[in-house]
Amino acid sequence: MNFASDNWAGATPEVMAALARHNDGYSPAYGGDPLSLSVAQRFSELFERGVEVWFTATGTASNSLGLAALSRPGGVVFCGEDAHVHTDESGATEFQSGGMKLVPLRSPLGLIDAGALATALGKHPVGGRSIPVALSLTNATEWGTVYGVAQVAELSAMARAGGLKVHMDGARFGNAVAALGVTPAELTWKAGVDFLSFGATKNGCWAAEAIVVFTPGLLGDFEPRRQRAGHTFSKARFVAAQFEGYLEQDNWLRRAGHANAMSERLRAGIRASSVARLGWENTANEVFAVISKAALARLRAAGGAAHEWPSDGLAADETLVRLVTSWATTEADVDGFLGVL
Amino acid sequence: MNFASDNWAGATPEVMAALARHNDGYSPAYGGDPLSLSVAQRFSELFERGVEVWFTATGTASNSLGLAALSRPGGVVFCGEDAHVHTDESGATEFQSGGMKLVPLRSPLGLIDAGALATALGKHPVGGRSIPVALSLTNATEWGTVYGVAQVAELSAMARAGGLKVHMDGARFGNAVAALGVTPAELTWKAGVDFLSFGATKNGCWAAEAIVVFTPGLLGDFEPRRQRAGHTFSKARFVAAQFEGYLEQDNWLRRAGHANAMSERLRAGIRASSVARLGWENTANEVFAVISKAALARLRAAGGAAHEWPSDGLAADETLVRLVTSWATTEADVDGFLGVL
Amino acid sequence: MNFASDNWAGATPEVMAALARHNDGYSPAYGGDPLSLSVAQRFSELFERGVEVWFTATGTASNSLGLAALSRPGGVVFCGEDAHVHTDESGATEFQSGGMKLVPLRSPLGLIDAGALATALGKHPVGGRSIPVALSLTNATEWGTVYGVAQVAELSAMARAGGLKVHMDGARFGNAVAALGVTPAELTWKAGVDFLSFGATKNGCWAAEAIVVFTPGLLGDFEPRRQRAGHTFSKARFVAAQFEGYLEQDNWLRRAGHANAMSERLRAGIRASSVARLGWENTANEVFAVISKAALARLRAAGGAAHEWPSDGLAADETLVRLVTSWATTEADVDGFLGVL
Amino acid sequence: MNFASDNWAGATPEVMAALARHNDGYSPAYGGDPLSLSVAQRFSELFERGVEVWFTATGTASNSLGLAALSRPGGVVFCGEDAHVHTDESGATEFQSGGMKLVPLRSPLGLIDAGALATALGKHPVGGRSIPVALSLTNATEWGTVYGVAQVAELSAMARAGGLKVHMDGARFGNAVAALGVTPAELTWKAGVDFLSFGATKNGCWAAEAIVVFTPGLLGDFEPRRQRAGHTFSKARFVAAQFEGYLEQDNWLRRAGHANAMSERLRAGIRASSVARLGWENTANEVFAVISKAALARLRAAGGAAHEWPSDGLAADETLVRLVTSWATTEADVDGFLGVL
Repeated sequence: MNFASDNWAGATPEVMAALARHNDGYSPAYGGDPLSLSVAQRFSELFERGVEVWFTATGTASNSLGLAALSRPGGVVFCGEDAHVHTDESGATEFQSGGMKLVPLRSPLGLIDAGALATALGKHPVGGRSIPVALSLTNATEWGTVYGVAQVAELSAMARAGGLKVHMDGARFGNAVAALGVTPAELTWKAGVDFLSFGATKNGCWAAEAIVVFTPGLLGDFEPRRQRAGHTFSKARFVAAQFEGYLEQDNWLRRAGHANAMSERLRAGIRASSVARLGWENTANEVFAVISKAALARLRAAGGAAHEWPSDGLAADETLVRLVTSWATTEADVDGFLGVL
Repeated sequence: MNFASDNWAGATPEVMAALARHNDGYSPAYGGDPLSLSVAQRFSELFERGVEVWFTATGTASNSLGLAALSRPGGVVFCGEDAHVHTDESGATEFQSGGMKLVPLRSPLGLIDAGALATALGKHPVGGRSIPVALSLTNATEWGTVYGVAQVAELSAMARAGGLKVHMDGARFGNAVAALGVTPAELTWKAGVDFLSFGATKNGCWAAEAIVVFTPGLLGDFEPRRQRAGHTFSKARFVAAQFEGYLEQDNWLRRAGHANAMSERLRAGIRASSVARLGWENTANEVFAVISKAALARLRAAGGAAHEWPSDGLAADETLVRLVTSWATTEADVDGFLGVL
Repeated sequence: MNFASDNWAGATPEVMAALARHNDGYSPAYGGDPLSLSVAQRFSELFERGVEVWFTATGTASNSLGLAALSRPGGVVFCGEDAHVHTDESGATEFQSGGMKLVPLRSPLGLIDAGALATALGKHPVGGRSIPVALSLTNATEWGTVYGVAQVAELSAMARAGGLKVHMDGARFGNAVAALGVTPAELTWKAGVDFLSFGATKNGCWAAEAIVVFTPGLLGDFEPRRQRAGHTFSKARFVAAQFEGYLEQDNWLRRAGHANAMSERLRAGIRASSVARLGWENTANEVFAVISKAALARLRAAGGAAHEWPSDGLAADETLVRLVTSWATTEADVDGFLGVL
Repeated sequence: MNFASDNWAGATPEVMAALARHNDGYSPAYGGDPLSLSVAQRFSELFERGVEVWFTATGTASNSLGLAALSRPGGVVFCGEDAHVHTDESGATEFQSGGMKLVPLRSPLGLIDAGALATALGKHPVGGRSIPVALSLTNATEWGTVYGVAQVAELSAMARAGGLKVHMDGARFGNAVAALGVTPAELTWKAGVDFLSFGATKNGCWAAEAIVVFTPGLLGDFEPRRQRAGHTFSKARFVAAQFEGYLEQDNWLRRAGHANAMSERLRAGIRASSVARLGWENTANEVFAVISKAALARLRAAGGAAHEWPSDGLAADETLVRLVTSWATTEADVDGFLGVL
């Protein structure tokens, strides 16, 4: 009954198996190994396009290094007001970029409001002292919601019309794709996304992330940037192997689909409950529920875990909890939680 | 017969076992998990002192984040002229510190010359426009040599007298300790070292490094610094587990001792050879040998690997090669190489 | 009739005289000259307290270097949503600080809302991933309004209770002091301000700014920070001399008072006008007026100047203009403008 | 008899006159004023080519902002081992560039050794972890020597062949041009220089420097870079006016020629002296002389000034002093010094 976060789980059996499979023998360091090259090629197949891939081991590294590669003096990046890049990375993008500014936009339920983007674009004119360089979307969002293809395309088109590049923070990209039933290509470059932080850690790896660049060259001479940030791994096959296990046989989608299904099972139970209610509806692997403080206490007493979330307008004995499901969540976990309620 | 680098090997069985052992179940993210805490405690035992430990996954991250924590406007760091921090990290320390300057010192066979340090200290007076903040020593060095305890103590004392902190880049710390037969404490804080980049990747982990701070608090509020650099891992137990396997039952020393022994076997063979000679004598797990270009070609033809190294004063048909041994090197590898000669 | 900005005027006669007076002979470079030292001492008298003074030549330098001196990984600075530091300095504070984040707060008519500050403080808790380090107030504000002593004290007290330092951007500090009729001390350290960007350029110097630190030592070892940013002037007396002319005989207050009076004369005329109206009431040397586009065209045809300002809710033939008065503005300028209306 | 530095003098009468001449009336801020534009145009005439000009107020700003505009991750800049950018700017270039490394080259008497440059270029190969981006030459050098056109051309050609851009730190550019009797064009772009820090402060301005870019566009979108560093002046005409007075009627060359002549008068006197000797011969406005400590004491007792310089191999009662002449130095100053000897 641990719903604290999807990053509290370990690695999937297929990822562990791939690590074991590639452990023997010698392999060139720093990414020049055959496995890294073949896994990078796998991304081009997955995205139906020749892509450039840079492996890292944390989502913060992917987001901040990718955005920093677009940096320029006076540059600004638009993002959601609750975006992970803005609120949870200790200023990583500002730091890696040498001082770019993140401008948060109104984003109800985590989804950037198109009107807010239009206003922001108007406020940062050509020749001014803050030069927009990128729009960053998180998909699935921090609120468990998902941008559909049309929404991504609308925001991307507005950004591109203003000369911005479009970044997608896909720490839970698998959950978004699984929730929508679209292809990775449809949700990214076909909808105007220039580069993607493709996250695999939360969905079953130990520490495996990839920056997928849909227009090779967009991020410039990236290897020295990654290296000076300390994100070039000597035993690079350890990231590549995780990805091999993650991507083969569509494991990533199957695992993400499972996490989503577990969250839907939670939502269904809560919808049916007389003592709890959903904070809002959503489709990815997070559930936000208003429950009684007593129920939360019971959950914890039973060894379960869930984080409380700030919220206004609740009754004194209520609290909003975030419940995150993962590849490791079982039906028994879900039913156990519903039982505790 | 692969002697390209110790980071071309994989992970040891004990490290793989520890990863598997700790894969199940849920664990708090970002380093608050019981395993991370217990492994950190293990370092205090190892170093016979209450130490502060920050896990990272690359040596560049450890070196640059640690040194950057001491940064100040106008600050400079003294290091060896061939130090990894100076020549192989794409300016990581300069970047992480917001522009500190690395001042390389004359360092024959990788060992900083005490006279050069004295001169440098004299050239950077109080009130000047470059303010020394740290001395960085690499041990074992990039040339396969090892600073003894007395040498570390001498350089540290000079640095400390000038108000500098002393950093040791221990990417091959295990090899140094094993070569000297001293304790980790004797080679570090007892000899004046303030903090250590304790490397484990080269000696048998996938990606496991630790910044060991002998005076807790020296590096300030370090967690936000690590986080904004993208080096705080969500599934932090994956680093901690590697260290558990690495440190238990003195595996790290045993593995390092083996690598050193294999290099000594190489050196002995080369000393006895009439067609090759040692570039210089040393005791850690690197061997620098002058061989014929024909022998190198034969090695490569046989599937072996070794990097050529720049060198003056060789005959036209000679080359200097660096041969690195690791936990994975076998006697057969060594003897195979000697046979190829 | 030039109301484009107070930085479109030249230097006052007294500033020119001081430059001429101190031009002859030799003087130590980089701020060690007797004039720099005596003028710094003059600030302690002016502020009734032993203060630390750092001269610069631009307001952006003062703001960004001062705030950067407080920087830390993950650090954030709260400021008004239209604050010069946030919107007009091309990310100077983010850059100088190595990536601190500026968090804009709701600030009607340029004045930070106390409730917004309270909310922001609550949102950035201890242990989180954005650590508030400073509150920056602009006084007089970018909207021509002025924080009174009580308002400064209220916001400062809230900030200090949260462990923040308080910065005042005083690019138009003279206008604020003159408008309020208080002492410099009352409007700053007695009201909780820790350091002040004391601007003199707009109010009659060429390029003279000072960072006034009310708790000496607060900004650390500042000289290397200023030097590496290129803001330490070799012929430092050129800034000090400007300040001598600026401060002697209360010229600065007299000049600022004149500018304020000219703006009040403008406001009075506009209040009495049937064809124009004030955007809002204020007391410093900026006037925001809604006038007809035809009147603006007439002004420009007559050689006058004023910037249009973004505004909602105007009639189609109206525009909001910002009229800035300075030490050089004459009654004839004002009356000329009113005549054009 | 003040020979401490040329930056201990004030501004020339022609510079003061230009400031006074342009003080009246209103002028657009931030460099859009007619004077700034016309003075920029003057540089194109001076250099016989359409150049791009960026005004700053310190040499450190010019050097560091210009070099930083070429920065890239892993980038390095080659410079002389005693270059001002390396030893006297508190790490300004490292800071402004976000961590570029300055690699000092052997430079006897301040002149970079071509062989040392060749070696350095060879040590930083394509694909390595330090990517050379620029060569920085100081002319006149910090040792009072001057690179001739052929020397500049030789070093520039080597650098350009390696893909580097060539920067000239011309803090004493006027002294170099005057000493050589060449045109500004011949000493810069015709000899392979890409951009120049054109210094005017030392040679008679208050605070006036210009980055002259011989290939417009080379430094990218420079204005936001200058602005975020706090080096865009609101009352920009104050820099432009200084340059107007400096450049008109070849004042800059006349003043520099005078300073050089005064230094030659010093050198001649010292050559003829039996109690002093030249440290080395040179032609720009610095003289390095070995004198007795007693003579230095007499100079100081008489109100004179000169800095001692580190030197090996002197007798116990000797010292090496640096004597800097300027536009303000008189024959009486020189003769007074020689008399004190």
